[in-house]
Amino acid sequence: MDFSTKLNALATRVEAALDSLVPALPIGTPAGPARIQAAMRYSLQAGGKRLRPVLTLAAAELGAHGPEAADGAIAAALPAAAALECVHTYSLIHDDLPCMDNDDLRRGRPTCHRAFDEATALLAGDALLTQAFIILADAYADRPALAATLVRTVAHTAGGLRLVGGQMQDLLAERAAGTPAAATAAELEFIHLNKTAAMLEASLVCGGLVAGLPASSLDTLRRAGRDLGLAFQIVDDVLDATAATTELGKTAGKDARAGKATYVSLHGLERARELAAAETARARAALTELPGDTTILLALADRMLARRN
Amino acid sequence: MDFSTKLNALATRVEAALDSLVPALPIGTPAGPARIQAAMRYSLQAGGKRLRPVLTLAAAELGAHGPEAADGAIAAALPAAAALECVHTYSLIHDDLPCMDNDDLRRGRPTCHRAFDEATALLAGDALLTQAFIILADAYADRPALAATLVRTVAHTAGGLRLVGGQMQDLLAERAAGTPAAATAAELEFIHLNKTAAMLEASLVCGGLVAGLPASSLDTLRRAGRDLGLAFQIVDDVLDATAATTELGKTAGKDARAGKATYVSLHGLERARELAAAETARARAALTELPGDTTILLALADRMLARRN
Repeated sequence: MDFSTKLNALATRVEAALDSLVPALPIGTPAGPARIQAAMRYSLQAGGKRLRPVLTLAAAELGAHGPEAADGAIAAALPAAAALECVHTYSLIHDDLPCMDNDDLRRGRPTCHRAFDEATALLAGDALLTQAFIILADAYADRPALAATLVRTVAHTAGGLRLVGGQMQDLLAERAAGTPAAATAAELEFIHLNKTAAMLEASLVCGGLVAGLPASSLDTLRRAGRDLGLAFQIVDDVLDATAATTELGKTAGKDARAGKATYVSLHGLERARELAAAETARARAALTELPGDTTILLALADRMLARRN
Repeated sequence: MDFSTKLNALATRVEAALDSLVPALPIGTPAGPARIQAAMRYSLQAGGKRLRPVLTLAAAELGAHGPEAADGAIAAALPAAAALECVHTYSLIHDDLPCMDNDDLRRGRPTCHRAFDEATALLAGDALLTQAFIILADAYADRPALAATLVRTVAHTAGGLRLVGGQMQDLLAERAAGTPAAATAAELEFIHLNKTAAMLEASLVCGGLVAGLPASSLDTLRRAGRDLGLAFQIVDDVLDATAATTELGKTAGKDARAGKATYVSLHGLERARELAAAETARARAALTELPGDTTILLALADRMLARRN
């Protein structure tokens, strides 16, 4: 199976898992929960690259020998993958709100608060974050030690010191844009390590946890996720500066107009591209340390560097 | 120890647990996470009655024989109690936001978005919800089956079908206020069962889970929590119609001004008071089925009915 076919197969399984783990509600459900569920599904189904859940599945496959074992490893990791996509989607919905980035467009469609309203989007984000923990606790109920470890990993990743803390730092940086207090290179790295890389780390680690990989492999996955996360974010900055809105599926050129510190504004376009390539090389080096077939993970790292949206 | 002394002792332990489980961050923490943590602590420390965590501790004590065992049971349940208070506080912060109830006052102090700003309050709420799962997963890591069950209970309680679904239904009811689509008695009960009672059920059940109570007792705790929750909400409606803002610590008379359906508007003041007393009596009847010393739980039920704010 070539890389694109394999990637599509994994993404298709993610779509099916999201559909079954965040089900549509039957007719007769009271209007409140039905509206929440509709908004959750609207944002979940907006597509996107499914990068995080695919990383989870690819990491889970590392421990499997042969196609049948690989299939079982993927099936076992699907709920964890879906939970991570729920957390990611919640963070996008809240980031897009008027009091945050105030974005109208996400993945080429109206943002959740544009398609519904602000209160519904706020609550749908809350419900998606909670849904991640519902999925983990339900799906792994017969493996409670695994369930508890997955919850611990995802909660720390999403918490005030990482995902939310990085987002707050990013907002403070936006407010300071164009002033002498504008973000330094160290602050920018802090933002990306926590706002972006944390979730990629967790995606890989959760796959490894479900597959029962040893602690040394989990550490390696965490390092690879960190490097991939930084590369991902630098590429984001480059694309924001160079791509068109139609190609990106979200508003392009926002950072420069806002005078916001980015890898491009701090280091220039050429150096930013070099930094993204260097982080990708570090991630590749880490991934090759892992046991098992790392082809798909290495190909994902390359595709993340070369992506156009 | 009389009831007030006992209640104060439990509440004091809750305060200490919240302080240690949501710690202040050291100087040198980046501004983003430090600001999130400050906003989390601002809202957590606004006080309130600590009703939910006190219910958790009182339920945990039911399984203990003698003062030393009771002390141990309380200590074991403190993280669960703190986690529930984090979920409750997050829901208040988000409910108060401009796109929701747009409230300036909470527990007699400026709401989180008034004291900080809207984006910070949104993110502090997100971080508090996540913190609940961090606390459960960290504190019960050496009892993974318990950790997984607690997470499952809290997540389902806080999710889109219960706490968030009830809140959405409540918002829809507010929007329909004064129109022919205004909430019916059945819809009002749905709101209160999910927006209010769900958390009281979970508070009691989580205490029982930590104490290792049998399934029959957990069921009884759940029923008692349901009845207490309805009573609590009816009393809220009565107080909104009869008390002054200064006494309530939040804006009084909002429901009537908004033309919103409440137990008072649907059933009248006298009948609402009777319904609150009837639900309290049902809760008392359930509680007396439980093994162990239920004095404190019964006294709490009475105090909830007689409360003035």
